[in-house]
Amino acid sequence: MTRLFTDPDRFSEDSLRGFVAANPEYVRAVPGGVVRARPVREGQVAVVVGGGSGHYPAFSGLVGPGLAAGAVVGNIFTSPSARQAESVARAAQRGGGVLFSFGNYAGDRINFGMASERLHDAGIPTRTVLVTDDVASAPPEARADRRGIAGDFVVFKVAGAAAEEGLDLDGVERAARRANDATFSFGIAFAGCTMPGADQPLFTVPERTMALGLGIHGEPGISDHPMADAAEIATILVDRLLAERPAGAGGRVGAILNGLGATKYEELFLLWAHVADRLDSAGLTVVRPEVGELVTSLDMAACSLTLVWLDEDLERWWTAAADTPAFRRPRHTGPVEPVDADEAGEADQADLPVADADSRAAADQVLTVLRALHDTLHEHAEELGRIDAVAGDGDHGRGMCKGVDAAVRAAERVHARSGGAASVLTAAGDGWADEAGGTSGVLWGAGLRAWAGELGDHGRVDRHRVVAGARAALTTITRLGKAEVGDKTLVDALTPLVEHLESGVAAGRSLAEAWQDAAEQAAAAARATAQLRPRVGRARPLAERSVGTPDAGATSLALCAAAVARVLATNTNQ
Amino acid sequence: MTRLFTDPDRFSEDSLRGFVAANPEYVRAVPGGVVRARPVREGQVAVVVGGGSGHYPAFSGLVGPGLAAGAVVGNIFTSPSARQAESVARAAQRGGGVLFSFGNYAGDRINFGMASERLHDAGIPTRTVLVTDDVASAPPEARADRRGIAGDFVVFKVAGAAAEEGLDLDGVERAARRANDATFSFGIAFAGCTMPGADQPLFTVPERTMALGLGIHGEPGISDHPMADAAEIATILVDRLLAERPAGAGGRVGAILNGLGATKYEELFLLWAHVADRLDSAGLTVVRPEVGELVTSLDMAACSLTLVWLDEDLERWWTAAADTPAFRRPRHTGPVEPVDADEAGEADQADLPVADADSRAAADQVLTVLRALHDTLHEHAEELGRIDAVAGDGDHGRGMCKGVDAAVRAAERVHARSGGAASVLTAAGDGWADEAGGTSGVLWGAGLRAWAGELGDHGRVDRHRVVAGARAALTTITRLGKAEVGDKTLVDALTPLVEHLESGVAAGRSLAEAWQDAAEQAAAAARATAQLRPRVGRARPLAERSVGTPDAGATSLALCAAAVARVLATNTNQ
Repeated sequence: MTRLFTDPDRFSEDSLRGFVAANPEYVRAVPGGVVRARPVREGQVAVVVGGGSGHYPAFSGLVGPGLAAGAVVGNIFTSPSARQAESVARAAQRGGGVLFSFGNYAGDRINFGMASERLHDAGIPTRTVLVTDDVASAPPEARADRRGIAGDFVVFKVAGAAAEEGLDLDGVERAARRANDATFSFGIAFAGCTMPGADQPLFTVPERTMALGLGIHGEPGISDHPMADAAEIATILVDRLLAERPAGAGGRVGAILNGLGATKYEELFLLWAHVADRLDSAGLTVVRPEVGELVTSLDMAACSLTLVWLDEDLERWWTAAADTPAFRRPRHTGPVEPVDADEAGEADQADLPVADADSRAAADQVLTVLRALHDTLHEHAEELGRIDAVAGDGDHGRGMCKGVDAAVRAAERVHARSGGAASVLTAAGDGWADEAGGTSGVLWGAGLRAWAGELGDHGRVDRHRVVAGARAALTTITRLGKAEVGDKTLVDALTPLVEHLESGVAAGRSLAEAWQDAAEQAAAAARATAQLRPRVGRARPLAERSVGTPDAGATSLALCAAAVARVLATNTNQ
Repeated sequence: MTRLFTDPDRFSEDSLRGFVAANPEYVRAVPGGVVRARPVREGQVAVVVGGGSGHYPAFSGLVGPGLAAGAVVGNIFTSPSARQAESVARAAQRGGGVLFSFGNYAGDRINFGMASERLHDAGIPTRTVLVTDDVASAPPEARADRRGIAGDFVVFKVAGAAAEEGLDLDGVERAARRANDATFSFGIAFAGCTMPGADQPLFTVPERTMALGLGIHGEPGISDHPMADAAEIATILVDRLLAERPAGAGGRVGAILNGLGATKYEELFLLWAHVADRLDSAGLTVVRPEVGELVTSLDMAACSLTLVWLDEDLERWWTAAADTPAFRRPRHTGPVEPVDADEAGEADQADLPVADADSRAAADQVLTVLRALHDTLHEHAEELGRIDAVAGDGDHGRGMCKGVDAAVRAAERVHARSGGAASVLTAAGDGWADEAGGTSGVLWGAGLRAWAGELGDHGRVDRHRVVAGARAALTTITRLGKAEVGDKTLVDALTPLVEHLESGVAAGRSLAEAWQDAAEQAAAAARATAQLRPRVGRARPLAERSVGTPDAGATSLALCAAAVARVLATNTNQ
């Protein structure tokens, strides 16, 4: 949704004013748009781009050395007027003529066309190169009818680089035309954008569906399909473009994986990994890919892939330096240092202490307990997430699962190498901390490690060693986390667990009996955290919101304690 | 919503793989995160930043000369592990020691803290500077408890520049601490982000409401308020930060207007215009503002303002060059050329031909007609938008209003200067085309202009001149728009209008009578466009969707024709 404006009817003008104010070193305002703050050289071709607004960085964000000399800025998704195009071209040009370039839309064609006539009449030579990269918008035999989408950027980039090289108007026009002929895009939409002042998006895509063949003006796609995962989407995008590989194309391509607004960088990078794999499988070499937002459609959730089939000239222009508000490519800065394999490698696997039979038997129990934690955390992951979401990011359940998964894996590896109880539990703790990260990850990891230190790799693990381990874990967790009882953290549940374990065992009860009682106390304490407000690790106002909901960390600890109690109860040997 | 992934539990790792693949000239992967592809100089301090992922460009996008030497990358919104932080620091450092800097969150403090201990034990000197810029998260007297949000970037930037200058570890630490002490942020959220694999956002903000005091991990704001316009939001943001202006602060500030994900560039620029005004009113000079996305929260709809109070050193570090995947600031490139006032000025107001009384009387009628068009278009704007939204961007109604508003304004100016019928209508056409832009703007503008050419500024405007004008308008519109009858454009309604006007007047009917009949024919023809598919200016598959809905351009033309008929009917003098 587009929310920030004063008068929705003045959105484009108001936005342009802020853009110019934020970028005085790059652009200055002229009637109809912007031109470079430092004009092109005398006699250099002025590449003037443009179209409606709502597509930033296109078009005003692409004005600067190596790219456009000026940008004509229309209303949202609306062609600028002929007068605007004429005005910007006049201000941008320095005697080398004007190359207009813009996406192939009827309004832009007419308005820029009228501006061209007027410039021509005034003795300013002007050429036009339309961008027609969208393969979804017309079949290959009607190439000239296709729309321009993210391929706009490729054509502008090539034209700007060719102009910077000093080519004349004929040469820059030819370069831009070659770029357009070699450029193909295809996109997928997930949700529509909302015009300023509107309550509803321009279109909606049904739940768990994606629309193939997006437009950049809030047009819906051309066909709906069930939502796919990133690998499948990469296949769809790449294969659709490879199907139009031009005859005689070489093996080198430039690429843009473009986000349209609300599809974010992390998602685009994730998708890029799959796209790059597939291009590699097709035997193609990708040159300077751009993964990010270059031609957007307000806050539309969507992405598109663009390929430009490079020859020697196009590759030089595609990789040339540029410096604009939104796109800055520095000059090439020499080779990258080769990776030192040793340094980048994982830490060596430590030698494993030799354990005796008693400790190996205890290690079996440790593994059984870890698997029980695994099962209970996975079972309750969603519930833990819901609790955490009240004043946090709702990721506690997932984080605990990630931790316990890694802990079980690491423990199994050491167990398979006949490790003792301490070695198996230490590996579990390290695995948990390393994989899960976060506060709960480091605390659980360090806690298990401290616990392991009391179990040893030799001799029988009796109930006193287990209880000493519990105390060691509490001490470590309290020291690292700097939380005390009453702070609404896992310490609120862990403390009664440890204290009742100690008192139960001191009173001569079996480990299973003592643990059963201690786990019940931990559960009660975890529930009671609902009355508390956290004093650690939360913004204070948010802390208030969590009153009424128990702490997620204390809850997961109590769940784990109960799971251990069940293991011990079914194991009368303890 | 976050939609692109294969396994949501591997989102961060999969995303990082794609990020590295897309940026081989900048970064290389090491266990736990990334380091520069070209390491820091021997003996230079390595600034290592980090935290959970989901914040791109923070943290991996900020690795490169002038900024970070490495970034530790945790799971989404989750601190990386101690082992990850240690691993990245070891790979990034080149004997000058390590400065860790990250936002003030418990998990990061513990994990980076453990890493620092291990590095220290290994003989690698390590310091830590926490970022605490979020004024919403704790009161001023508890500054050290505040969270880090977009101010992260300021501290990293300053530390990176100080390290690049060759300061030793003490010096870089002091610089970073000064930056943090001088940096304050405040944010506003409109809608929450969605974790990969989740169906629902982490929080929702009630309709027409905004949440003040956002967090960057999907935490809701600290208080909800009625939605405000951009000027009011700028006031809220600026005033909240000025309230904490440090004692002794000078008049120069660096600034970041940060988008969190789905609040887009055009909105941020629009807001920046108001923020800049308000900072200016406060007597402050803004130095190199950054308006864009630097610290995001997946696809959260939100923005924040950061101010850093500059002294001479901080300004040098804030403005220093940097070159990273996501943030590139070139070296200063000399002064900007002063604006040529003449060139940037509006075109001169043309001399007005002197009109006779008859033509001035006709000009009154032209103005009356234009005002009638104004009223009918505003009345039907929403309906026209709905029709247009079926296969377009839904902006037709708004575009027509923008055009007719400008047409009436321009016509009134010329009418007030006693212009004749042709001058008034020409001004209306030019105003319409210039302000509205787009296809409909240029066609209506050119059409009115052509019509005006038949009316003249001398003599009575009889029905024959009106009809000749209508034909001239049709000819011009058909030539420019390249559309024919049957193409589902305004030509489908304009053609019968003109033809029936001609035949009616030729048969001796009054203008009012002929127009009434012609307008009815135009309306019928506009309705009949629902049976057609457009052949011009639409992607072909989208054209299919519009079958069943009349053309918006033909509909608005028919509405205007009916409005003119009503004017003529009440004016028996015609």
